[in-house]
Amino acid sequence: MAEIERIGISIEKTLLDKFDGLIEKQGYKNRSEAVRDLIRDRINQDKISDSKAETIAVVFLVYDHHSTKLSDNLIGLQHSHLVETISSMHIHLDKHDCLELIAVKGKKGKIEKLANKMISLKGVKGGKVNYIGI
Amino acid sequence: MAEIERIGISIEKTLLDKFDGLIEKQGYKNRSEAVRDLIRDRINQDKISDSKAETIAVVFLVYDHHSTKLSDNLIGLQHSHLVETISSMHIHLDKHDCLELIAVKGKKGKIEKLANKMISLKGVKGGKVNYIGI
Amino acid sequence: MAEIERIGISIEKTLLDKFDGLIEKQGYKNRSEAVRDLIRDRINQDKISDSKAETIAVVFLVYDHHSTKLSDNLIGLQHSHLVETISSMHIHLDKHDCLELIAVKGKKGKIEKLANKMISLKGVKGGKVNYIGI
Amino acid sequence: MAEIERIGISIEKTLLDKFDGLIEKQGYKNRSEAVRDLIRDRINQDKISDSKAETIAVVFLVYDHHSTKLSDNLIGLQHSHLVETISSMHIHLDKHDCLELIAVKGKKGKIEKLANKMISLKGVKGGKVNYIGI
Repeated sequence: MAEIERIGISIEKTLLDKFDGLIEKQGYKNRSEAVRDLIRDRINQDKISDSKAETIAVVFLVYDHHSTKLSDNLIGLQHSHLVETISSMHIHLDKHDCLELIAVKGKKGKIEKLANKMISLKGVKGGKVNYIGI
Repeated sequence: MAEIERIGISIEKTLLDKFDGLIEKQGYKNRSEAVRDLIRDRINQDKISDSKAETIAVVFLVYDHHSTKLSDNLIGLQHSHLVETISSMHIHLDKHDCLELIAVKGKKGKIEKLANKMISLKGVKGGKVNYIGI
Repeated sequence: MAEIERIGISIEKTLLDKFDGLIEKQGYKNRSEAVRDLIRDRINQDKISDSKAETIAVVFLVYDHHSTKLSDNLIGLQHSHLVETISSMHIHLDKHDCLELIAVKGKKGKIEKLANKMISLKGVKGGKVNYIGI
Repeated sequence: MAEIERIGISIEKTLLDKFDGLIEKQGYKNRSEAVRDLIRDRINQDKISDSKAETIAVVFLVYDHHSTKLSDNLIGLQHSHLVETISSMHIHLDKHDCLELIAVKGKKGKIEKLANKMISLKGVKGGKVNYIGI
C-alpha cells in the first residue's frame, strides 16, 4: 500500500470556488484526486523537458499502407535507434490510410529522433509523438 | 491514384537553405514530402479547433489496475458518450500501473468530455487526449 | 483583502516528495503557492477552450518594417475586429525585422480571427497568439 | 534585397484544395506567403527544442502589484540570470492585478530557469514563457 500524507493548502475563496466548479464539471469526486492529477501532470512536464530522461512515449503515424516497403522501413527504424518498442496498434482509417500507434521506451532525445525519421518516410502523411513521462 | 499537381513557391534563399538543412536532419528525401507534411499538419490543427468537427483521437490513461471497478467504469463511460471506440491497447508499466490507449471517433467536443470524465476517475493517475484530425 | 480558506489534500508520500523537489528547484517558497499556481493555470486552460469566453491575449508578430503599408494594414485590422487593443510593444530585432507584441481583449474566437489575418499579411514572417485567460 | 528562389512542390489535388480553402479563410493573398510561414514556424520550433540555442522570448506574468517587494525581486532576478532584458510592458488588468510582458534574449535553458523563478515568486499568480526562436 502506498503511504498517504495529508497536507494543508491555503487558497483564496474565490479561486477555490472556481476550482470546485471546474472539477465538478470534469467529474472529479473530490479535490484531493484533482490536485494529485495536477501535481502528477506538472512533474511529467518537467521530466520530459530533459532530452536525456527515460520516458515512455507513443508515436502516431498516419500512412498509406500501399506505399512500397514502408512497413519494412518502419520496423527497420525501430530496431536501429536504441529505443525499445513496447507494443503497437494498427487502425484502418479508410481504404488507403492507417493510423499506427507505437508505444516506445527510451531516452526522450532518442525517441524524438526516431519519430522524426518515421514521420519523414515517403508514404507517411503525418505524425507526432506524445511523451507519457512516467 | 491520387491526382498530383505541381505548384511553384517563391522563397528567400536564406530561408530555403535553413529548411533544406532541417529536413535533411529529419530524414526527408525531398522538399515536396516535407512541405506536404507541413500542409497536412496545418489543416489538421485547423480542423480540431472546431469542437463540432468529426475527428479521430487517442485518449491516454495511466491508472492503477488494482482500483476497484475502474475497468467497469471506463467501459461504461465509453458506451455513454456517443463516441465510437475503435480500438484500445493496454500496456503494463510496472506492478501497479498500466498505460491504456483508446482510439475513438466522434465530435471533438464529445471526445473531450469523455476524456475528462475518464481522467477524473479514482485510480486514474493522469491522462490526455491527442486529436488526429484526419 | 481576499478571503483565504485552508483545505486538506491527501497525497501519496512518493508523489509529494517528487513535488517538493520540483517546486524547490523552481524556486517556490511553499506548497500552497505552487498548488495555487497549478489551479489557476488549469482554470485558465479551461476558460480559453471556449471560443466565446472573454479573454486577454497577446499577439506576437515578427515582420519586416520595410514592407509597404504593413503598419497601416495592421492598425486597420485592429480597428475592424471588435477586439480592444490594450497596448502594444515594438522591439527592433535587427536591421529589417521587428517583434511586435499587441495585448488585446475580447472574445477568444474574435481574437483568433484577428491574429490569423495579421499573420497572413505580406511582410509578416510569423506570429502566434497567447491567451492569458484572466 | 533578399535573394529569392522559386521551387516546385508536387502535391495531391485534394490536399491542395483543402490548403487553398484554409489560407483563403486565414487571409493569405497567395500560397508562397502561406508556405513560407509554415516553413519559418517549423524552423523556429526546431531551434527552440535546443536548450543552448540563443533565442528571444517573452515572459508573461500576472501578479498583484500590492505584493511586498515583488517588483524589486523581479528586477533582481532579471539581473542575475545572464539573460538580457530587451524591453517590458506593463498592463493594468484590474484594481489588483497586472500583466507584465518581459522580452528577453539569451540561451533557451537560461530563460526557462529565469521564468520559473519569476513565476514561483509570492504574489505572482501565473505566467508562462513564449519562445520566438528568431
